[in-house]
Amino acid sequence: MSHKTITIFGVGAFGYAVLKHLEGQANLPHNLIAFDADQNINDSLQKERKHPHFHKDISISDSTHVAESAHKAIFQSDILILVASSDASREVARAIKLSAKDGVTILNLAKGLETETGKRLSEIYNEKLAEKDYSYAVMAGGTTAEDLINKRPIGADLASTDEQTAELLKTILGSDTLSINLSSDLKGVELASALKNIISMVAGMVQGFGLPHGTLTFAISKFSQQIAAECISGLGAHSETFSLGSQCWGNDIWLSSLSDTRNRRFGELIGQGTPVKQAIQSMGESNSLIEGVNTLKALIYIPALYEIYIIRLLHKLIVEESIDINSFKKEFLASLN
Amino acid sequence: MSHKTITIFGVGAFGYAVLKHLEGQANLPHNLIAFDADQNINDSLQKERKHPHFHKDISISDSTHVAESAHKAIFQSDILILVASSDASREVARAIKLSAKDGVTILNLAKGLETETGKRLSEIYNEKLAEKDYSYAVMAGGTTAEDLINKRPIGADLASTDEQTAELLKTILGSDTLSINLSSDLKGVELASALKNIISMVAGMVQGFGLPHGTLTFAISKFSQQIAAECISGLGAHSETFSLGSQCWGNDIWLSSLSDTRNRRFGELIGQGTPVKQAIQSMGESNSLIEGVNTLKALIYIPALYEIYIIRLLHKLIVEESIDINSFKKEFLASLN
Repeated sequence: MSHKTITIFGVGAFGYAVLKHLEGQANLPHNLIAFDADQNINDSLQKERKHPHFHKDISISDSTHVAESAHKAIFQSDILILVASSDASREVARAIKLSAKDGVTILNLAKGLETETGKRLSEIYNEKLAEKDYSYAVMAGGTTAEDLINKRPIGADLASTDEQTAELLKTILGSDTLSINLSSDLKGVELASALKNIISMVAGMVQGFGLPHGTLTFAISKFSQQIAAECISGLGAHSETFSLGSQCWGNDIWLSSLSDTRNRRFGELIGQGTPVKQAIQSMGESNSLIEGVNTLKALIYIPALYEIYIIRLLHKLIVEESIDINSFKKEFLASLN
Repeated sequence: MSHKTITIFGVGAFGYAVLKHLEGQANLPHNLIAFDADQNINDSLQKERKHPHFHKDISISDSTHVAESAHKAIFQSDILILVASSDASREVARAIKLSAKDGVTILNLAKGLETETGKRLSEIYNEKLAEKDYSYAVMAGGTTAEDLINKRPIGADLASTDEQTAELLKTILGSDTLSINLSSDLKGVELASALKNIISMVAGMVQGFGLPHGTLTFAISKFSQQIAAECISGLGAHSETFSLGSQCWGNDIWLSSLSDTRNRRFGELIGQGTPVKQAIQSMGESNSLIEGVNTLKALIYIPALYEIYIIRLLHKLIVEESIDINSFKKEFLASLN
């Protein structure tokens, strides 16, 4: 493989883990560029060679270049790895349109659907980069920043409609501990990785209701199957993408439903009777984004999914706030049978 | 439905929960008979109306008849619900052959494969009851005695090759909180409910190795898919039986891999380096049966499954004891990628 310039665009906790992961791929002597829109993060990476907030005991290599601007981060890149928040997608796409060279490969690690349109992120890039020559892939799965940076054995799906792009990215990112499964089902992987946030939220709610682990696994199994069935038959996703062996679904549902994720914690607060606004506020100082809530809002634009009973019920409770938690709980439990 | 006589044959913790569940199905005025081969349990049920070991705060109804012998428990029954241990299958089948009336319906809640032959339990009954007129079903899923007796919402698959038998049993057992999904895939449900014990054991081993939750969900997702693929393509099981929405697989794998089951605990001990014999001994005073270990022994008679790499590896470690835990761990981690 020829020498590539790879940019990690967005250096939060996960972006930093991806950067360290790539620095550790010693057999691949690529140029690495890091950039974050937060000047404070960029400065710290540049001067201290450390992240100001995450993994503070781990510094970055001297050979990693920290770019001073989005343009400088993008214009030389062969491969852009996007680790920005999903709601920054249009802004990121604009920067890519302005600065990226033709033939650039985009690997998007952001997950979600556009709240105001229900669009998958690839659809947004497709729209914004219509006149650009680029290839596009996503990676999603049972990957946390913590496990990636600590080199724990984990798995992910990497999906692209272009097989060569997927193969190239697997060569660059795959390692002894990061097992990458290739998929051609870009749409399915995008849907699965957004929808699993709703499942995590439901898992939290079951816990918030004080129901046992057996009810939680029952509810997850039931609702994940209903959602999967619509994605496959209604939206044309591949059935493998929604199988137990799928990294972005079968693995990630259980990873995110049974660990301390924001979606699960938010669901738990809601299940305990905390009003929606208060639950969102109490979730985060600086960051009030609950992916599951945004995904729920977006689903109004995807009828096949919006018409699923549990989705409508969650929408009424969390988005419309037209039913209270007691009515929700009653209908939720009835719908399980 | 006509008035039925229903026998719960085997009154351990789960049998007692099934008995209480049926007593609570007040709209179905069936005769209930309970019997356990342990005289002490039978006496306690008869005289104290309580179980001597489990759920001691919950007594049984006066209208439930406690039979004095296996023959008396069986001969009047329209429906026999077997909650005995899987390794008692031939003995139970013999008692049924001697005493059951023609046309009896058997619902087997035992799970497992015969250690010495690899046969599914339905194959054993088929063999032993060749000259008998009977119908047969199994029920398996995310059901624990605790959740069933406390009326928590849970789900199970009920499988029979005879649709009417399945429908009848669903009417008798289904409730507001026990959701029953019918299946015609008797073989698949039997395989899934035996094999999930091996997955729970592997889950425990990953924990015993000190690996994080992300590696656990990755490993479960990966191996459950490998096993499912062989059951479907090699042994003719239905793919729904091995889906995320399957109660005996998608639900029960996660229920039993992430709660305090004997298989998971045994796996954890093994993963921590405890020698096999010592781990088995330390598991139980009276009960040294680890279902996952017995299932593993049985798989030598089912080549399609025995040839799966992780199964062969587990067999070497736990049954043959021909490799040590360090070699196992090394090969296990390599096989994840």
